[in-house]
Amino acid sequence: MTVTAARTADRYPTRIADRPLLIDRAEPAAWSRDPGPLSTEELDAHDRDGFVTVPQLLTPDEVERYSAELDRLATDPTVKADERTIVEKTSQQVRSIFEVHRLSDAIAALVADERVAGRARQILGSDVYVHQTRINYKPGFGGGGFYWHSDFETWHAEDGMPSPRAVSISISLTVNFAHNGCLMIMPGSHRTFVSCVGETPADNYKESLREQEIGTPDPDSLTTLADAHGIQMFTGAAGSATLFDSNCMHGSGSNITPYPRSNIFIVFNSVENTLEEPFSAPGRRPEYIGSRDFTPVAS
Amino acid sequence: MTVTAARTADRYPTRIADRPLLIDRAEPAAWSRDPGPLSTEELDAHDRDGFVTVPQLLTPDEVERYSAELDRLATDPTVKADERTIVEKTSQQVRSIFEVHRLSDAIAALVADERVAGRARQILGSDVYVHQTRINYKPGFGGGGFYWHSDFETWHAEDGMPSPRAVSISISLTVNFAHNGCLMIMPGSHRTFVSCVGETPADNYKESLREQEIGTPDPDSLTTLADAHGIQMFTGAAGSATLFDSNCMHGSGSNITPYPRSNIFIVFNSVENTLEEPFSAPGRRPEYIGSRDFTPVAS
Repeated sequence: MTVTAARTADRYPTRIADRPLLIDRAEPAAWSRDPGPLSTEELDAHDRDGFVTVPQLLTPDEVERYSAELDRLATDPTVKADERTIVEKTSQQVRSIFEVHRLSDAIAALVADERVAGRARQILGSDVYVHQTRINYKPGFGGGGFYWHSDFETWHAEDGMPSPRAVSISISLTVNFAHNGCLMIMPGSHRTFVSCVGETPADNYKESLREQEIGTPDPDSLTTLADAHGIQMFTGAAGSATLFDSNCMHGSGSNITPYPRSNIFIVFNSVENTLEEPFSAPGRRPEYIGSRDFTPVAS
Repeated sequence: MTVTAARTADRYPTRIADRPLLIDRAEPAAWSRDPGPLSTEELDAHDRDGFVTVPQLLTPDEVERYSAELDRLATDPTVKADERTIVEKTSQQVRSIFEVHRLSDAIAALVADERVAGRARQILGSDVYVHQTRINYKPGFGGGGFYWHSDFETWHAEDGMPSPRAVSISISLTVNFAHNGCLMIMPGSHRTFVSCVGETPADNYKESLREQEIGTPDPDSLTTLADAHGIQMFTGAAGSATLFDSNCMHGSGSNITPYPRSNIFIVFNSVENTLEEPFSAPGRRPEYIGSRDFTPVAS
Protein backbone atom coordinates (compact mmCIF):
# COMPACT_ATOMS: atom_id res chain seq x y z
CA MET A 1 0.00 0.00 0.00
CA THR A 2 1.33 3.42 -0.90
CA VAL A 3 0.62 6.25 1.49
CA THR A 4 1.45 9.61 0.00
CA ALA A 5 1.12 13.13 1.28
CA ALA A 6 0.06 12.02 4.75
CA ARG A 7 0.93 14.67 7.30
CA THR A 8 3.80 13.66 9.58
CA ALA A 9 2.45 12.14 12.78
CA ASP A 10 -1.09 11.82 11.44
CA ARG A 11 -2.24 8.77 13.33
CA TYR A 12 -5.49 8.59 11.35
CA PRO A 13 -4.68 8.96 7.65
CA THR A 14 -7.75 8.67 5.42
CA ARG A 15 -8.75 9.36 1.82
CA ILE A 16 -5.07 9.07 0.88
CA ALA A 17 -4.18 5.42 0.34
CA ASP A 18 -5.60 3.26 -2.43
CA ARG A 19 -6.90 0.60 -0.06
CA PRO A 20 -8.99 0.82 3.11
CA LEU A 21 -7.23 0.13 6.39
CA LEU A 22 -8.35 -0.57 9.96
CA ILE A 23 -6.33 1.44 12.48
CA ASP A 24 -6.43 0.85 16.24
CA ARG A 25 -7.46 3.89 18.21
CA ALA A 26 -4.89 5.28 20.64
CA GLU A 27 -7.10 7.44 22.84
CA PRO A 28 -9.78 6.47 25.34
CA ALA A 29 -13.39 7.47 24.72
CA ALA A 30 -14.02 8.49 28.34
CA TRP A 31 -11.24 10.79 29.49
CA SER A 32 -12.33 11.22 33.11
CA ARG A 33 -14.18 9.62 35.95
CA ASP A 34 -14.99 13.07 37.36
CA PRO A 35 -18.24 13.43 39.34
CA GLY A 36 -21.22 14.83 37.46
CA PRO A 37 -24.46 13.73 35.79
CA LEU A 38 -22.87 10.48 34.57
CA SER A 39 -21.97 7.75 37.06
CA THR A 40 -18.58 6.03 37.01
CA GLU A 41 -20.33 2.96 35.57
CA GLU A 42 -21.76 5.05 32.75
CA LEU A 43 -18.35 6.54 31.99
CA ASP A 44 -16.91 3.02 31.94
CA ALA A 45 -19.68 1.93 29.58
CA HIS A 46 -19.04 4.89 27.30
CA ASP A 47 -15.37 3.99 27.20
CA ARG A 48 -16.14 0.36 26.37
CA ASP A 49 -19.12 0.73 24.00
CA GLY A 50 -18.59 4.23 22.64
CA PHE A 51 -21.97 5.46 23.78
CA VAL A 52 -24.19 6.01 26.79
CA THR A 53 -27.94 6.61 26.78
CA VAL A 54 -30.07 8.90 28.95
CA PRO A 55 -33.64 7.53 29.00
CA GLN A 56 -35.17 10.86 30.02
CA LEU A 57 -32.91 13.83 29.48
CA LEU A 58 -35.79 16.24 28.76
CA THR A 59 -39.07 16.42 30.67
CA PRO A 60 -42.31 16.03 28.68
CA ASP A 61 -42.82 19.80 29.04
CA GLU A 62 -39.41 20.50 27.56
CA VAL A 63 -40.06 18.07 24.71
CA GLU A 64 -43.19 20.03 23.88
CA ARG A 65 -41.38 23.38 24.06
CA TYR A 66 -38.43 22.29 21.93
CA SER A 67 -40.74 20.61 19.41
CA ALA A 68 -42.57 23.91 18.98
CA GLU A 69 -39.22 25.66 18.54
CA LEU A 70 -38.22 23.15 15.82
CA ASP A 71 -41.55 23.69 14.06
CA ARG A 72 -41.01 27.42 14.18
CA LEU A 73 -37.51 27.13 12.70
CA ALA A 74 -38.52 24.65 9.97
CA THR A 75 -41.32 26.88 8.73
CA ASP A 76 -39.47 30.21 8.94
CA PRO A 77 -38.83 31.32 5.31
CA THR A 78 -35.66 33.18 6.33
CA VAL A 79 -34.28 30.03 7.96
CA LYS A 80 -35.29 27.86 4.98
CA ALA A 81 -33.40 30.17 2.62
CA ASP A 82 -30.30 30.24 4.86
CA GLU A 83 -27.19 28.43 3.61
CA ARG A 84 -27.07 26.62 6.95
CA THR A 85 -30.33 24.86 6.14
CA ILE A 86 -30.24 21.56 4.24
CA VAL A 87 -33.26 20.77 2.10
CA GLU A 88 -34.06 17.19 1.00
CA LYS A 89 -33.41 16.59 -2.69
CA THR A 90 -36.73 15.10 -3.71
CA SER A 91 -39.31 16.53 -1.30
CA GLN A 92 -37.77 20.00 -0.85
CA GLN A 93 -38.46 19.63 2.89
CA VAL A 94 -36.08 20.98 5.52
CA ARG A 95 -33.87 18.10 6.66
CA SER A 96 -31.29 19.82 8.86
CA ILE A 97 -30.48 23.27 10.19
CA PHE A 98 -26.87 23.84 11.22
CA GLU A 99 -25.46 26.21 13.84
CA VAL A 100 -28.91 26.24 15.35
CA HIS A 101 -27.63 27.39 18.76
CA ARG A 102 -26.94 30.75 17.09
CA LEU A 103 -30.44 30.88 15.60
CA SER A 104 -32.34 29.91 18.75
CA ASP A 105 -31.83 31.11 22.31
CA ALA A 106 -33.70 28.06 23.59
CA ILE A 107 -31.25 25.72 21.92
CA ALA A 108 -28.28 27.81 23.06
CA ALA A 109 -29.53 27.36 26.62
CA LEU A 110 -29.88 23.61 26.11
CA VAL A 111 -26.29 23.33 24.83
CA ALA A 112 -24.98 24.99 28.00
CA ASP A 113 -27.30 23.04 30.31
CA GLU A 114 -25.38 20.98 32.89
CA ARG A 115 -27.36 17.88 31.82
CA VAL A 116 -25.82 18.30 28.36
CA ALA A 117 -22.50 20.17 28.54
CA GLY A 118 -21.86 18.65 31.98
CA ARG A 119 -21.96 15.14 30.56
CA ALA A 120 -19.68 16.17 27.68
CA ARG A 121 -17.13 17.64 30.11
CA GLN A 122 -17.10 14.41 32.11
CA ILE A 123 -16.59 12.30 29.01
CA LEU A 124 -13.91 14.48 27.47
CA GLY A 125 -12.16 15.22 30.79
CA SER A 126 -11.74 18.91 30.04
CA ASP A 127 -13.58 22.06 29.16
CA VAL A 128 -15.52 21.67 25.94
CA TYR A 129 -16.57 23.91 23.08
CA VAL A 130 -19.23 23.48 20.43
CA HIS A 131 -17.90 21.99 17.20
CA GLN A 132 -21.30 21.74 15.51
CA THR A 133 -25.00 21.89 16.31
CA ARG A 134 -27.94 21.00 14.17
CA ILE A 135 -31.52 19.94 14.30
CA ASN A 136 -32.64 17.05 12.11
CA TYR A 137 -36.11 16.45 10.71
CA LYS A 138 -36.60 12.92 9.42
CA PRO A 139 -39.92 12.49 7.65
CA GLY A 140 -41.99 9.30 7.66
CA PHE A 141 -43.65 7.67 4.63
CA GLY A 142 -40.33 6.89 2.97
CA GLY A 143 -37.77 9.28 4.45
CA GLY A 144 -34.25 8.17 3.60
CA GLY A 145 -31.69 6.89 6.09
CA PHE A 146 -28.01 7.64 6.43
CA TYR A 147 -25.35 5.14 5.46
CA TRP A 148 -22.69 3.89 7.91
CA HIS A 149 -20.02 6.43 8.74
CA SER A 150 -17.70 7.67 11.47
CA ASP A 151 -18.16 11.37 12.15
CA PHE A 152 -14.53 11.66 13.22
CA GLU A 153 -13.39 10.40 9.82
CA THR A 154 -15.03 13.45 8.25
CA TRP A 155 -14.09 15.89 11.01
CA HIS A 156 -10.47 14.76 10.79
CA ALA A 157 -10.26 14.78 6.99
CA GLU A 158 -12.33 17.87 6.28
CA ASP A 159 -12.21 19.96 9.48
CA GLY A 160 -8.74 19.20 10.83
CA MET A 161 -9.83 17.68 14.14
CA PRO A 162 -6.62 16.03 15.37
CA SER A 163 -7.94 13.22 17.61
CA PRO A 164 -11.24 11.51 18.41
CA ARG A 165 -11.69 13.49 21.62
CA ALA A 166 -15.17 14.71 20.77
CA VAL A 167 -18.62 13.51 21.74
CA SER A 168 -22.03 13.98 20.16
CA ILE A 169 -25.37 14.07 21.88
CA SER A 170 -28.55 13.32 20.00
CA ILE A 171 -31.64 14.43 21.89
CA SER A 172 -34.87 12.93 20.52
CA LEU A 173 -38.02 15.02 20.34
CA THR A 174 -40.03 12.10 18.93
CA VAL A 175 -40.36 8.42 19.79
CA ASN A 176 -37.59 6.25 18.38
CA PHE A 177 -39.01 2.88 17.38
CA ALA A 178 -36.98 0.06 15.88
CA HIS A 179 -39.09 0.57 12.77
CA ASN A 180 -38.83 4.28 12.05
CA GLY A 181 -35.22 4.73 11.08
CA CYS A 182 -33.61 5.03 14.49
CA LEU A 183 -29.90 5.51 15.11
CA MET A 184 -27.86 2.29 14.84
CA ILE A 185 -24.36 1.93 16.29
CA MET A 186 -21.87 -0.93 16.20
CA PRO A 187 -20.93 -1.01 19.92
CA GLY A 188 -17.16 -0.92 20.39
CA SER A 189 -16.52 0.15 16.79
CA HIS A 190 -15.18 3.48 18.08
CA ARG A 191 -11.93 1.69 18.95
CA THR A 192 -11.16 1.13 15.26
CA PHE A 193 -10.59 3.89 12.74
CA VAL A 194 -11.62 2.90 9.22
CA SER A 195 -9.30 4.66 6.82
CA CYS A 196 -11.33 5.32 3.67
CA VAL A 197 -10.32 5.53 0.03
CA GLY A 198 -11.16 8.34 -2.38
CA GLU A 199 -9.82 11.87 -2.45
CA THR A 200 -12.02 14.67 -1.04
CA PRO A 201 -13.24 16.97 -3.82
CA ALA A 202 -13.51 20.72 -3.26
CA ASP A 203 -16.73 21.76 -1.50
CA ASN A 204 -17.51 18.10 -0.79
CA TYR A 205 -19.74 19.12 2.16
CA LYS A 206 -22.42 20.50 -0.15
CA GLU A 207 -23.11 17.00 -1.41
CA SER A 208 -22.09 14.94 1.61
CA LEU A 209 -24.57 16.58 3.97
CA ARG A 210 -27.35 15.16 1.81
CA GLU A 211 -25.76 11.85 1.00
CA GLN A 212 -22.21 10.96 1.86
CA GLU A 213 -20.03 9.32 -0.80
CA ILE A 214 -16.45 10.27 0.02
CA GLY A 215 -15.48 8.99 3.46
CA THR A 216 -17.79 6.01 3.13
CA PRO A 217 -16.39 2.86 4.75
CA ASP A 218 -15.88 -0.10 2.42
CA PRO A 219 -18.07 -3.22 2.68
CA ASP A 220 -15.28 -5.49 3.97
CA SER A 221 -14.42 -3.14 6.84
CA LEU A 222 -18.11 -2.81 7.73
CA THR A 223 -18.53 -6.59 7.72
CA THR A 224 -15.49 -7.00 9.98
CA LEU A 225 -16.83 -4.44 12.45
CA ALA A 226 -20.44 -5.68 12.37
CA ASP A 227 -19.40 -9.31 12.83
CA ALA A 228 -17.15 -8.35 15.74
CA HIS A 229 -19.48 -5.92 17.48
CA GLY A 230 -23.06 -6.47 16.32
CA ILE A 231 -25.48 -3.66 15.63
CA GLN A 232 -27.48 -1.90 18.35
CA MET A 233 -30.65 0.06 17.62
CA PHE A 234 -31.46 3.07 19.82
CA THR A 235 -35.13 3.08 20.68
CA GLY A 236 -36.65 5.31 23.33
CA ALA A 237 -39.22 7.88 24.33
CA ALA A 238 -39.31 11.48 23.22
CA GLY A 239 -36.84 13.31 25.47
CA SER A 240 -34.34 10.46 25.56
CA ALA A 241 -30.77 11.07 24.45
CA THR A 242 -27.71 9.19 23.30
CA LEU A 243 -24.16 10.44 23.79
CA PHE A 244 -21.77 8.79 21.38
CA ASP A 245 -18.11 8.96 20.61
CA SER A 246 -16.98 10.76 17.46
CA ASN A 247 -15.56 7.56 15.98
CA CYS A 248 -18.60 5.26 16.46
CA MET A 249 -19.61 3.50 13.26
CA HIS A 250 -23.24 4.54 12.98
CA GLY A 251 -26.06 4.99 10.49
CA SER A 252 -29.80 4.62 10.08
CA GLY A 253 -32.23 2.90 7.77
CA SER A 254 -35.13 4.39 5.87
CA ASN A 255 -38.45 5.23 7.51
CA ILE A 256 -41.60 4.05 5.73
CA THR A 257 -43.76 4.38 8.87
CA PRO A 258 -46.10 7.32 9.44
CA TYR A 259 -43.94 8.40 12.39
CA PRO A 260 -41.38 11.13 11.63
CA ARG A 261 -38.33 11.64 13.79
CA SER A 262 -36.69 14.84 14.87
CA ASN A 263 -33.77 15.52 17.14
CA ILE A 264 -31.33 18.11 18.37
CA PHE A 265 -27.73 17.17 17.69
CA ILE A 266 -24.80 18.82 19.47
CA VAL A 267 -21.12 18.01 19.04
CA PHE A 268 -18.71 18.95 21.81
CA ASN A 269 -14.98 18.91 21.25
CA SER A 270 -12.32 19.10 23.93
CA VAL A 271 -10.57 22.46 24.21
CA GLU A 272 -7.38 20.37 24.14
CA ASN A 273 -8.30 19.04 20.68
CA THR A 274 -8.99 22.22 18.70
CA LEU A 275 -9.00 22.19 14.91
CA GLU A 276 -5.93 22.42 12.71
CA GLU A 277 -5.95 22.52 8.93
CA PRO A 278 -7.95 19.71 7.27
CA PHE A 279 -5.98 16.46 7.17
CA SER A 280 -7.35 15.32 3.83
CA ALA A 281 -9.30 17.99 1.99
CA PRO A 282 -8.37 20.91 -0.26
CA GLY A 283 -9.91 23.48 2.11
CA ARG A 284 -11.81 24.07 5.32
CA ARG A 285 -15.56 23.56 5.56
CA PRO A 286 -17.68 26.56 6.56
CA GLU A 287 -17.61 27.47 10.24
CA TYR A 288 -21.31 26.68 10.65
CA ILE A 289 -20.36 23.01 10.06
CA GLY A 290 -16.99 22.91 11.81
CA SER A 291 -16.64 25.82 14.21
CA ARG A 292 -13.32 27.55 14.84
CA ASP A 293 -14.67 29.50 17.79
CA PHE A 294 -13.02 27.50 20.54
CA THR A 295 -14.57 29.45 23.44
CA PRO A 296 -15.39 26.97 26.23
CA VAL A 297 -19.03 26.46 27.09
CA ALA A 298 -19.48 28.24 30.43
CA SER A 299 -20.10 25.90 33.34
CA MET B 1 -67.16 10.57 -3.91
CA THR B 2 -67.91 9.35 -7.42
CA VAL B 3 -67.53 5.65 -8.08
CA THR B 4 -67.65 4.84 -11.76
CA ALA B 5 -67.31 1.64 -13.70
CA ALA B 6 -67.11 -0.53 -10.58
CA ARG B 7 -68.23 -4.07 -11.34
CA THR B 8 -71.61 -4.93 -9.82
CA ALA B 9 -71.14 -6.63 -6.48
CA ASP B 10 -67.47 -5.75 -6.25
CA ARG B 11 -67.08 -5.46 -2.53
CA TYR B 12 -63.51 -4.16 -2.83
CA PRO B 13 -63.47 -1.39 -5.47
CA THR B 14 -60.04 0.18 -5.88
CA ARG B 15 -58.20 2.46 -8.33
CA ILE B 16 -61.60 3.76 -9.43
CA ALA B 17 -62.75 6.56 -7.10
CA ASP B 18 -61.00 9.89 -6.74
CA ARG B 19 -60.53 9.54 -2.99
CA PRO B 20 -59.16 6.71 -0.85
CA LEU B 21 -61.64 4.75 1.23
CA LEU B 22 -61.40 2.29 4.11
CA ILE B 23 -63.70 -0.71 3.59
CA ASP B 24 -64.46 -3.28 6.28
CA ARG B 25 -63.56 -6.80 5.30
CA ALA B 26 -66.45 -9.28 5.09
CA GLU B 27 -64.55 -12.55 5.16
CA PRO B 28 -62.59 -14.20 7.96
CA ALA B 29 -58.85 -14.71 7.60
CA ALA B 30 -58.89 -18.24 9.07
CA TRP B 31 -61.62 -20.26 7.35
CA SER B 32 -61.30 -23.47 9.36
CA ARG B 33 -60.28 -24.89 12.69
CA ASP B 34 -59.44 -28.21 11.02
CA PRO B 35 -56.70 -30.32 12.61
CA GLY B 36 -53.24 -30.03 11.06
CA PRO B 37 -49.85 -28.42 11.62
CA LEU B 38 -51.47 -25.27 13.10
CA SER B 39 -53.16 -25.43 16.49
CA THR B 40 -56.64 -23.99 17.08
CA GLU B 41 -54.96 -21.16 19.00
CA GLU B 42 -52.72 -20.40 16.03
CA LEU B 43 -55.71 -20.35 13.67
CA ASP B 44 -57.48 -17.99 16.08
CA ALA B 45 -54.39 -15.77 16.14
CA HIS B 46 -54.20 -15.75 12.36
CA ASP B 47 -57.82 -14.72 12.19
CA ARG B 48 -57.28 -11.93 14.72
CA ASP B 49 -53.84 -10.62 13.69
CA GLY B 50 -53.69 -11.64 10.04
CA PHE B 51 -50.52 -13.67 10.46
CA VAL B 52 -48.96 -16.58 12.28
CA THR B 53 -45.26 -17.36 12.63
CA VAL B 54 -43.41 -20.67 12.58
CA PRO B 55 -40.12 -20.26 14.45
CA GLN B 56 -38.49 -23.26 12.77
CA LEU B 57 -40.25 -24.45 9.65
CA LEU B 58 -37.05 -25.66 7.98
CA THR B 59 -34.28 -27.62 9.67
CA PRO B 60 -30.74 -26.18 9.50
CA ASP B 61 -29.91 -28.85 6.89
CA GLU B 62 -32.83 -27.77 4.75
CA VAL B 63 -31.84 -24.11 5.10
CA GLU B 64 -28.42 -25.00 3.77
CA ARG B 65 -29.86 -27.03 0.87
CA TYR B 66 -32.38 -24.37 -0.18
CA SER B 67 -29.77 -21.62 0.15
CA ALA B 68 -27.55 -23.53 -2.27
CA GLU B 69 -30.53 -23.89 -4.62
CA LEU B 70 -31.16 -20.12 -4.48
CA ASP B 71 -27.50 -19.43 -5.21
CA ARG B 72 -27.65 -21.78 -8.17
CA LEU B 73 -30.75 -20.06 -9.55
CA ALA B 74 -29.45 -16.50 -9.02
CA THR B 75 -26.22 -17.22 -10.87
CA ASP B 76 -27.71 -19.24 -13.75
CA PRO B 77 -27.42 -17.00 -16.87
CA THR B 78 -30.53 -18.59 -18.42
CA VAL B 79 -32.56 -17.81 -15.31
CA LYS B 80 -31.16 -14.25 -15.13
CA ALA B 81 -32.24 -13.61 -18.74
CA ASP B 82 -35.73 -15.08 -18.15
CA GLU B 83 -38.66 -12.64 -18.13
CA ARG B 84 -39.70 -14.13 -14.79
CA THR B 85 -36.53 -12.77 -13.19
CA ILE B 86 -36.57 -9.24 -11.76
CA VAL B 87 -33.25 -7.42 -11.75
CA GLU B 88 -32.62 -4.42 -9.45
CA LYS B 89 -32.50 -1.11 -11.30
CA THR B 90 -29.22 0.24 -10.00
CA SER B 91 -27.09 -2.80 -9.13
CA GLN B 92 -28.31 -5.14 -11.89
CA GLN B 93 -28.49 -7.89 -9.25
CA VAL B 94 -31.23 -10.52 -9.28
CA ARG B 95 -33.90 -9.38 -6.85
CA SER B 96 -36.73 -11.88 -7.45
CA ILE B 97 -37.42 -14.96 -9.54
CA PHE B 98 -41.11 -15.74 -10.16
CA GLU B 99 -42.79 -19.08 -10.77
CA VAL B 100 -39.77 -20.64 -9.18
CA HIS B 101 -41.62 -23.88 -8.37
CA ARG B 102 -41.58 -24.57 -12.09
CA LEU B 103 -37.85 -23.88 -12.32
CA SER B 104 -36.79 -25.94 -9.31
CA ASP B 105 -37.92 -29.42 -8.25
CA ALA B 106 -36.71 -28.72 -4.72
CA ILE B 107 -38.97 -25.71 -4.41
CA ALA B 108 -41.89 -27.58 -6.01
CA ALA B 109 -41.50 -30.21 -3.29
CA LEU B 110 -41.45 -27.53 -0.60
CA VAL B 111 -44.67 -25.98 -1.92
CA ALA B 112 -46.47 -29.34 -1.62
CA ASP B 113 -44.93 -30.17 1.76
CA GLU B 114 -47.55 -30.72 4.46
CA ARG B 115 -45.73 -28.18 6.68
CA VAL B 116 -46.42 -25.57 3.99
CA ALA B 117 -49.49 -26.49 1.92
CA GLY B 118 -51.03 -28.18 4.98
CA ARG B 119 -50.99 -24.92 6.91
CA ALA B 120 -52.45 -23.07 3.93
CA ARG B 121 -55.31 -25.60 3.65
CA GLN B 122 -56.12 -25.16 7.34
CA ILE B 123 -56.16 -21.39 7.06
CA LEU B 124 -58.20 -21.24 3.86
CA GLY B 125 -60.56 -24.11 4.85
CA SER B 126 -60.40 -25.76 1.44
CA ASP B 127 -58.08 -27.22 -1.12
CA VAL B 128 -55.54 -24.67 -2.29
CA TYR B 129 -53.66 -23.92 -5.49
CA VAL B 130 -50.55 -21.87 -6.14
CA HIS B 131 -51.30 -18.29 -7.16
CA GLN B 132 -47.68 -17.19 -7.22
CA THR B 133 -44.23 -18.29 -6.07
CA ARG B 134 -41.01 -16.39 -6.00
CA ILE B 135 -37.66 -16.22 -4.32
CA ASN B 136 -36.40 -12.85 -3.10
CA TYR B 137 -32.81 -11.76 -2.69
CA LYS B 138 -32.42 -8.63 -0.61
CA PRO B 139 -28.88 -7.32 -0.57
CA GLY B 140 -27.21 -5.59 2.37
CA PHE B 141 -25.12 -2.39 2.23
CA GLY B 142 -28.05 -0.26 1.14
CA GLY B 143 -30.60 -2.62 -0.42
CA GLY B 144 -33.95 -0.89 -0.81
CA GLY B 145 -37.11 -1.78 1.09
CA PHE B 146 -40.67 -2.10 -0.10
CA TYR B 147 -43.31 0.50 0.71
CA TRP B 148 -46.56 -0.39 2.53
CA HIS B 149 -49.07 -2.32 0.48
CA SER B 150 -51.77 -4.97 0.61
CA ASP B 151 -51.09 -7.83 -1.79
CA PHE B 152 -54.81 -8.45 -2.16
CA GLU B 153 -55.31 -4.92 -3.44
CA THR B 154 -53.05 -5.73 -6.37
CA TRP B 155 -54.31 -9.30 -6.86
CA HIS B 156 -57.90 -8.04 -6.90
CA ALA B 157 -57.28 -5.08 -9.19
CA GLU B 158 -54.78 -6.64 -11.56
CA ASP B 159 -55.37 -10.41 -11.33
CA GLY B 160 -59.12 -10.62 -10.71
CA MET B 161 -58.93 -12.38 -7.34
CA PRO B 162 -62.50 -11.99 -6.03
CA SER B 163 -61.98 -12.15 -2.24
CA PRO B 164 -59.14 -12.06 0.28
CA ARG B 165 -59.18 -15.83 0.71
CA ALA B 166 -55.49 -16.29 0.02
CA VAL B 167 -52.48 -16.69 2.27
CA SER B 168 -48.78 -16.11 1.71
CA ILE B 169 -45.90 -17.86 3.38
CA SER B 170 -42.48 -16.27 3.54
CA ILE B 171 -39.78 -18.76 4.47
CA SER B 172 -36.51 -17.11 5.52
CA LEU B 173 -33.19 -18.59 4.49
CA THR B 174 -31.24 -15.91 6.36
CA VAL B 175 -31.51 -14.35 9.81
CA ASN B 176 -34.12 -11.61 10.06
CA PHE B 177 -32.89 -8.91 12.41
CA ALA B 178 -34.83 -5.78 13.30
CA HIS B 179 -32.06 -3.89 11.55
CA ASN B 180 -31.75 -5.58 8.17
CA GLY B 181 -35.00 -4.73 6.47
CA CYS B 182 -37.27 -7.41 7.90
CA LEU B 183 -40.96 -7.79 7.08
CA MET B 184 -43.21 -5.36 8.98
CA ILE B 185 -46.97 -5.90 9.35
CA MET B 186 -49.66 -3.81 11.00
CA PRO B 187 -51.39 -6.56 13.04
CA GLY B 188 -55.14 -6.57 12.42
CA SER B 189 -54.87 -4.36 9.34
CA HIS B 190 -56.09 -7.28 7.20
CA ARG B 191 -59.63 -6.51 8.41
CA THR B 192 -59.64 -3.19 6.52
CA PHE B 193 -59.36 -2.87 2.76
CA VAL B 194 -57.70 0.37 1.69
CA SER B 195 -59.25 1.40 -1.61
CA CYS B 196 -56.53 3.23 -3.53
CA VAL B 197 -56.70 6.05 -6.04
CA GLY B 198 -55.08 6.11 -9.49
CA GLU B 199 -55.98 4.11 -12.57
CA THR B 200 -53.86 1.06 -13.44
CA PRO B 201 -51.82 1.68 -16.60
CA ALA B 202 -51.28 -1.10 -19.13
CA ASP B 203 -48.42 -3.45 -18.21
CA ASN B 204 -48.21 -1.82 -14.78
CA TYR B 205 -46.57 -4.96 -13.35
CA LYS B 206 -43.31 -4.30 -15.21
CA GLU B 207 -42.75 -1.23 -13.07
CA SER B 208 -44.62 -2.22 -9.91
CA LEU B 209 -42.52 -5.34 -9.27
CA ARG B 210 -39.53 -3.06 -8.84
CA GLU B 211 -41.24 -0.20 -7.05
CA GLN B 212 -44.98 0.03 -6.62
CA GLU B 213 -46.69 3.36 -7.38
CA ILE B 214 -50.24 2.50 -8.43
CA GLY B 215 -52.06 0.70 -5.63
CA THR B 216 -50.07 2.55 -2.99
CA PRO B 217 -52.11 3.38 0.12
CA ASP B 218 -52.41 7.08 0.95
CA PRO B 219 -50.67 8.56 4.02
CA ASP B 220 -53.90 9.26 5.94
CA SER B 221 -55.11 5.66 5.61
CA LEU B 222 -51.69 4.36 6.67
CA THR B 223 -51.66 6.65 9.70
CA THR B 224 -55.14 5.47 10.69
CA LEU B 225 -54.11 1.82 10.44
CA ALA B 226 -50.72 2.27 12.14
CA ASP B 227 -52.22 4.27 15.02
CA ALA B 228 -54.93 1.63 15.49
CA HIS B 229 -52.77 -1.46 15.14
CA GLY B 230 -49.11 -0.61 15.65
CA ILE B 231 -46.32 -2.07 13.58
CA GLN B 232 -44.79 -5.48 14.22
CA MET B 233 -41.34 -6.46 12.95
CA PHE B 234 -40.71 -10.11 12.07
CA THR B 235 -37.33 -11.19 13.36
CA GLY B 236 -36.20 -14.79 13.51
CA ALA B 237 -33.66 -17.43 12.65
CA ALA B 238 -32.94 -18.79 9.20
CA GLY B 239 -35.62 -21.42 8.57
CA SER B 240 -38.37 -19.46 10.29
CA ALA B 241 -41.53 -18.59 8.39
CA THR B 242 -44.45 -16.20 8.54
CA LEU B 243 -47.86 -16.98 7.07
CA PHE B 244 -49.83 -13.81 6.42
CA ASP B 245 -53.21 -12.93 5.04
CA SER B 246 -53.44 -11.47 1.55
CA ASN B 247 -54.84 -8.19 2.87
CA CYS B 248 -52.24 -7.47 5.59
CA MET B 249 -50.75 -4.01 5.31
CA HIS B 250 -47.05 -4.80 5.13
CA GLY B 251 -43.74 -3.44 3.94
CA SER B 252 -40.05 -3.30 4.79
CA GLY B 253 -37.38 -0.69 5.30
CA SER B 254 -33.99 -0.46 3.65
CA ASN B 255 -31.04 -2.60 4.69
CA ILE B 256 -27.73 -0.82 5.25
CA THR B 257 -26.27 -3.69 7.30
CA PRO B 258 -23.80 -6.20 5.84
CA TYR B 259 -26.42 -8.95 6.26
CA PRO B 260 -28.46 -9.76 3.14
CA ARG B 261 -31.83 -11.44 3.35
CA SER B 262 -33.33 -14.09 1.12
CA ASN B 263 -36.57 -15.94 1.29
CA ILE B 264 -38.93 -18.25 -0.54
CA PHE B 265 -42.37 -16.75 -0.98
CA ILE B 266 -45.43 -18.84 -1.85
CA VAL B 267 -49.00 -17.61 -2.29
CA PHE B 268 -51.83 -20.10 -1.91
CA ASN B 269 -55.34 -19.23 -3.02
CA SER B 270 -58.48 -21.17 -2.16
CA VAL B 271 -59.89 -23.27 -5.01
CA GLU B 272 -63.19 -21.57 -4.11
CA ASN B 273 -61.67 -18.15 -4.89
CA THR B 274 -60.23 -18.64 -8.39
CA LEU B 275 -59.41 -15.68 -10.58
CA GLU B 276 -61.90 -13.80 -12.73
CA GLU B 277 -61.04 -10.91 -15.02
CA PRO B 278 -59.04 -8.08 -13.37
CA PHE B 279 -61.29 -5.80 -11.31
CA SER B 280 -59.36 -2.63 -12.08
CA ALA B 281 -56.80 -3.06 -14.84
CA PRO B 282 -56.88 -3.01 -18.62
CA GLY B 283 -55.62 -6.58 -18.91
CA ARG B 284 -54.40 -9.66 -17.07
CA ARG B 285 -50.88 -9.91 -15.72
CA PRO B 286 -48.73 -12.77 -17.01
CA GLU B 287 -49.49 -16.20 -15.56
CA TYR B 288 -46.06 -16.43 -13.92
CA ILE B 289 -47.25 -13.62 -11.62
CA GLY B 290 -50.92 -14.55 -11.24
CA SER B 291 -51.46 -18.18 -12.17
CA ARG B 292 -54.64 -19.38 -13.86
CA ASP B 293 -53.76 -23.03 -13.36
CA PHE B 294 -56.18 -23.77 -10.55
CA THR B 295 -55.11 -27.39 -10.03
CA PRO B 296 -55.19 -28.13 -6.30
CA VAL B 297 -51.89 -28.89 -4.60
CA ALA B 298 -52.00 -32.65 -3.93
CA SER B 299 -52.26 -33.52 -0.27
